[in-house]
Amino acid sequence: MIPELIAGLSGLLPAGAVKTGAFDVEPYARDQGPVLTLQSPSAVVWVETVEQVQEVLRWAHTNRVPVVPRGAGTGVSGGAHATTGCIVLNLERMNRIIAVKPLDEIAVVEPGVINADLNTAAARHGLMYAPDPASYRISTIGGNVATNAGGLRCAKYGVTRDSILALDVVLADGTLIHTGVQTFKGVAGYDLTSLFVGSEGTLGIVVGVTVRLRYLPHSEQTLAAFFPNVQAAAAGVLAIGQARVQPAIMELLDGMTLSALDGAHGSNLRGRGGALLLVQTDGFGAEAEAAVVRTVLTSLGGTVDSQDVGEAARLIDLRRHSRGDEVDDEFRVGEDVAVPRSQLVHYIAQLERVAADHSVQLKVVAHAGDGNLHPTFWVSAREGVEGVARLDLALDESVRLALDLGGTITGEHGVGQYKLRWLPWEQGEQVLELQRQIKDVFDPHGILNPGKAITARA
Amino acid sequence: MIPELIAGLSGLLPAGAVKTGAFDVEPYARDQGPVLTLQSPSAVVWVETVEQVQEVLRWAHTNRVPVVPRGAGTGVSGGAHATTGCIVLNLERMNRIIAVKPLDEIAVVEPGVINADLNTAAARHGLMYAPDPASYRISTIGGNVATNAGGLRCAKYGVTRDSILALDVVLADGTLIHTGVQTFKGVAGYDLTSLFVGSEGTLGIVVGVTVRLRYLPHSEQTLAAFFPNVQAAAAGVLAIGQARVQPAIMELLDGMTLSALDGAHGSNLRGRGGALLLVQTDGFGAEAEAAVVRTVLTSLGGTVDSQDVGEAARLIDLRRHSRGDEVDDEFRVGEDVAVPRSQLVHYIAQLERVAADHSVQLKVVAHAGDGNLHPTFWVSAREGVEGVARLDLALDESVRLALDLGGTITGEHGVGQYKLRWLPWEQGEQVLELQRQIKDVFDPHGILNPGKAITARA
Repeated sequence: MIPELIAGLSGLLPAGAVKTGAFDVEPYARDQGPVLTLQSPSAVVWVETVEQVQEVLRWAHTNRVPVVPRGAGTGVSGGAHATTGCIVLNLERMNRIIAVKPLDEIAVVEPGVINADLNTAAARHGLMYAPDPASYRISTIGGNVATNAGGLRCAKYGVTRDSILALDVVLADGTLIHTGVQTFKGVAGYDLTSLFVGSEGTLGIVVGVTVRLRYLPHSEQTLAAFFPNVQAAAAGVLAIGQARVQPAIMELLDGMTLSALDGAHGSNLRGRGGALLLVQTDGFGAEAEAAVVRTVLTSLGGTVDSQDVGEAARLIDLRRHSRGDEVDDEFRVGEDVAVPRSQLVHYIAQLERVAADHSVQLKVVAHAGDGNLHPTFWVSAREGVEGVARLDLALDESVRLALDLGGTITGEHGVGQYKLRWLPWEQGEQVLELQRQIKDVFDPHGILNPGKAITARA
Repeated sequence: MIPELIAGLSGLLPAGAVKTGAFDVEPYARDQGPVLTLQSPSAVVWVETVEQVQEVLRWAHTNRVPVVPRGAGTGVSGGAHATTGCIVLNLERMNRIIAVKPLDEIAVVEPGVINADLNTAAARHGLMYAPDPASYRISTIGGNVATNAGGLRCAKYGVTRDSILALDVVLADGTLIHTGVQTFKGVAGYDLTSLFVGSEGTLGIVVGVTVRLRYLPHSEQTLAAFFPNVQAAAAGVLAIGQARVQPAIMELLDGMTLSALDGAHGSNLRGRGGALLLVQTDGFGAEAEAAVVRTVLTSLGGTVDSQDVGEAARLIDLRRHSRGDEVDDEFRVGEDVAVPRSQLVHYIAQLERVAADHSVQLKVVAHAGDGNLHPTFWVSAREGVEGVARLDLALDESVRLALDLGGTITGEHGVGQYKLRWLPWEQGEQVLELQRQIKDVFDPHGILNPGKAITARA
């Protein structure tokens, strides 16, 4: 980008807000998603106020400069990857909790607030912000909104969208708008709030978020049930549903995942079973529900450890932080498909077949209550392009299979950049074209996070 | 409309599907909302298949004929009122429950399915369709989707949008599209499903609905607490929240509402208190939660009847069916504002002042857990236009007050036709214009339910 243009932007903002040096911008070139072609941003721009975001957008709109918004960069689909000639708009310093209103059971926050920090503030009032992606200790509310993040608790408490009441959004031309309501219910006009949630920064820049808070549970009960194999554990998920118990958390970990945890933490989980189902019930009925879950899982051949109540909670914590076990000598891609719950057992069996067919490694964790699976496929880096080609074939086949079963390509991570090739497999051309036309309404020059979330016209 | 045009439409459909006689169309000229200027439809068209809906839309699109979609006509905002030169597209015969999938915990229905019928079908599997507008025995799922209907249980279980996973929609030009997913989670592309929910038939005709089902509660506990006045009852709502109990139902009825129920049913509710709070807890913790609620409300001066457990449930049923107590010698308008929960007590006091200032009658019921109030204002028909003018002033002031407190003009009934005058009080011109542009994308000729849900350009 021509230096005069960047100088013009710098002049609109406080000193030091715009950086262009290679070392300065390199950490902001990508998120945690797979990279197809690494691009460097022309500049990284730190903003601290709504007005600054408006200034930047007016400048970008006038000069037709692509803007890639970024929170903590913890996304895993490439939604925050830099693209050609872009600036990265870094919102991490807009991290103030504007208000927690305990009687209204809402909070108002800036987009750079860390999910866990909002929960800490809410907990002082006996409240919680329910959506809890595994990245909750490091990811921002703005990023959670951009991807409509899920998490462990969403089987019972819903995904991010279900906790978002209102948004302040800066549009592509710098206009600030307010969507939604400060109340629990509201149906005035079209649901623009839900349209922005999950749109990955392609329709506007979220600069303010009003969230609904929930009550911190009266009590929690956590069970760990080991099963001989993953199919048996998945059958347990369905049986808990048939007992009409709604756990807050229901996580399924396969044998390879247990081995990986053992390797990282020195535990002996794999020695205790071929799969693990972690179930947490909460609320005034938590104990009664846990008793039902225990009976159901035991009758299906599960081994429910009743000795150490602390262990199950510790395992949930391990599961929450299961990121970061990647090693440098592997190519790996984590997936995020969801299937109808009845297909869980069948789909996991198919995944294992796919991995064997293509000679790739596989481990699977699942937010099983939602039918949302995170299979990770990998090959050794030694296998080079041939290995990557096999990896891609396995990924493609696993996605096709999920769609054939009535599933979706992404339950909670978003399409970003990496999953664009699969979007037309799921959605018809008319639906894709409607989305492009909506994009044109909000962003006529196409400057907002181009090449993300929706497919371009052919 | 010229007869040749109608004849052309009739030729596309089975015999008897199109009616134009004054007696035939008159019952379909309006819904249950206030009528500003009564219009007669040019024709009423009964459709039974998706293909027929597509035929009708193709014809309407080509001939620029306005189409007013209609379910059971139970809406209360005029969203199904006929408009000049329109046809009414009657979807009540598309009433098949296509599938109930108990293991997936979803159902697929046509839009004309009655809410209660879906619940009956789900109950056979221990499941329920949670959204329960007071009209649930007579209203359709398609209508519930069109207005994003709420109901009694949504404090805990969410509104219609929260239970809708996927939609089949016929667009203005007759194209059939599929939005959403058959899974509990899904974030591929923009959330078109939420965009259609609550759009009152102005963006497309919903011809198929995939809903998420919930578990029928393990048990229910219902309490009726009488208070000296409505402010005390409203304070009880906040106290239950501060005790971190989330009831499934929390309904507040003021003294005038109790008197009206007494008049209609021969009860003596008003003699027992100046306001009534009905609370239902459910699930495995229902009894423990009810015990907390009882303690909280008693300590605030509430009289909780513990003798007759059946009575409270009967009162909930009365509340559910409180429609139809209108009498012919009154002009009355029911409102649907929502305010932040902390403002409940203050707002109800303001409502009473407004009614006194304008010498109009007032009664109030509220889905108090959501801060969603249904004040009804009325005057005697004898007061003529002068009375209606006072009624309008009271309505306008009550809406302004709700907005000043951070509220919304409509919590669950929709804008329809009647509330259009209030929409610009809530939403800025940029937000209104974005909605018009979205409308243009979906319906370029403006044939879908014109003059509803969003305001036209000035």
